[in-house]
Amino acid sequence: MKHPFDEAVALQSNGEHRFVGATAPAYANMVGPFGGVTAATALGAVLQHPALLGEPVALTVNYATALADGPFDVTARPARTNRSTQHWVVEIVQAGETVLTATALTAARRETWGVDELAAPDMPTPEAVGKPNMAAAVEWVKRYDIRITEGAIPTAWDGSGDASRSTLWMRDEPARALDFCSLAAMADVFYPRVWLRRATRVPAGTVSMTVYFHAGSGQLAEVGTGWLLGQAQAQAFRNGFFDQTAQVWSEAGQLLATTHQVVYYKE
Amino acid sequence: MKHPFDEAVALQSNGEHRFVGATAPAYANMVGPFGGVTAATALGAVLQHPALLGEPVALTVNYATALADGPFDVTARPARTNRSTQHWVVEIVQAGETVLTATALTAARRETWGVDELAAPDMPTPEAVGKPNMAAAVEWVKRYDIRITEGAIPTAWDGSGDASRSTLWMRDEPARALDFCSLAAMADVFYPRVWLRRATRVPAGTVSMTVYFHAGSGQLAEVGTGWLLGQAQAQAFRNGFFDQTAQVWSEAGQLLATTHQVVYYKE
Repeated sequence: MKHPFDEAVALQSNGEHRFVGATAPAYANMVGPFGGVTAATALGAVLQHPALLGEPVALTVNYATALADGPFDVTARPARTNRSTQHWVVEIVQAGETVLTATALTAARRETWGVDELAAPDMPTPEAVGKPNMAAAVEWVKRYDIRITEGAIPTAWDGSGDASRSTLWMRDEPARALDFCSLAAMADVFYPRVWLRRATRVPAGTVSMTVYFHAGSGQLAEVGTGWLLGQAQAQAFRNGFFDQTAQVWSEAGQLLATTHQVVYYKE
Repeated sequence: MKHPFDEAVALQSNGEHRFVGATAPAYANMVGPFGGVTAATALGAVLQHPALLGEPVALTVNYATALADGPFDVTARPARTNRSTQHWVVEIVQAGETVLTATALTAARRETWGVDELAAPDMPTPEAVGKPNMAAAVEWVKRYDIRITEGAIPTAWDGSGDASRSTLWMRDEPARALDFCSLAAMADVFYPRVWLRRATRVPAGTVSMTVYFHAGSGQLAEVGTGWLLGQAQAQAFRNGFFDQTAQVWSEAGQLLATTHQVVYYKE
């Protein structure tokens, strides 16, 4: 049986640069699907394009509106192919209207000097946390085992918040070997920072997200079905939008991806 | 007389969604123009499009190749216009080939609760630093007054580096009132973090940059020709690419923009 994530991001080829997919009830959010899965779908179109060069380095997705439940069209076009890098322009369309725009950079990476400057934070093991502890108010949250060790969703909405940082363990539920698409999706599991900072539940939704992939497919294969460590924090909240900067490490402490997003909020 | 920055980002309308511009020798980099000015040019096409809604919230530019000195074509297309947000797809083309892809989000922002979570670092005043101190090996550096207070370009390339953070004051030279385009350009003034981390000068160039604008035009007008405070740091260097996360505050301490980029490096 296919993993629900593979079903959710599945695309059928539909001519040159074109694919068709459909939203998956297993990853439903309050309105439309979990944005992480939509980002993964956009990246997936690039990764299964016959002209692909290399592996993902950067992905930016812009959520132009909530996807409607049902089918959608994806176009993924290599705008420029260099000797070792390739630039992609992606669009998702429903009923003739753009619902997502994206760009991606792929590259044939070469071994070089390297270092992880940002070390993973110290935290209790997933086993010490014991059980998933992110409330599953929406369906997609059940598709992850998320164990928050700092900055849980407030239990009292009393306006008492004073910081926006969350630290957590995460993996697919059921387990699934990590790949670029699932890593892109997990970059978006952090609930809206404005809820934590204000201890106030206001409407909020990601409008743009960027993921930088530091790991290659070899490192992802080493992680396999292991735990990922994530940390996310806002830098500024102002007039309807806040940003969030986040990191995703392997349990062994390798920085696999860094990610940023800007999120709309009300009030 | 026009400020050199205004000359560099000037565009002529060339039909629906189309503009023409040209590279400016005043902002020349080692190869092609300073990437910050190219990002500002892409944003400028959006801002002078007759269908524009609101002000910039997010901008992502992908440098597909170095621009050649000379003219270029810009297309800026509103892919989706909602009630209060608008999504843009931008491309710069030279001799029929894509040299830059970009997306942008603009929005009519409303006053809401807000807070700057990330405070500006303490540092000596620009006057205490005294004079510009970023070596002007290339022309564009002379178009800024940059006063680095932490993490200067190494003077000895001896492989001794151990951190990648730089903190600095900056403003246009000569002075120019801040606007969205010049803020986008200044998001890219930080020299390659790999030079600092390794105290080794290797070839390096930005391949993708994202800017989140926290300030509206009112806040930018308040800054006027004042100093901006910038801080940048890498998170990971691996197999030919590193990332950089940076913040830009006003001298009064307001977080105006946060920005991220991924940079190619050799060896």
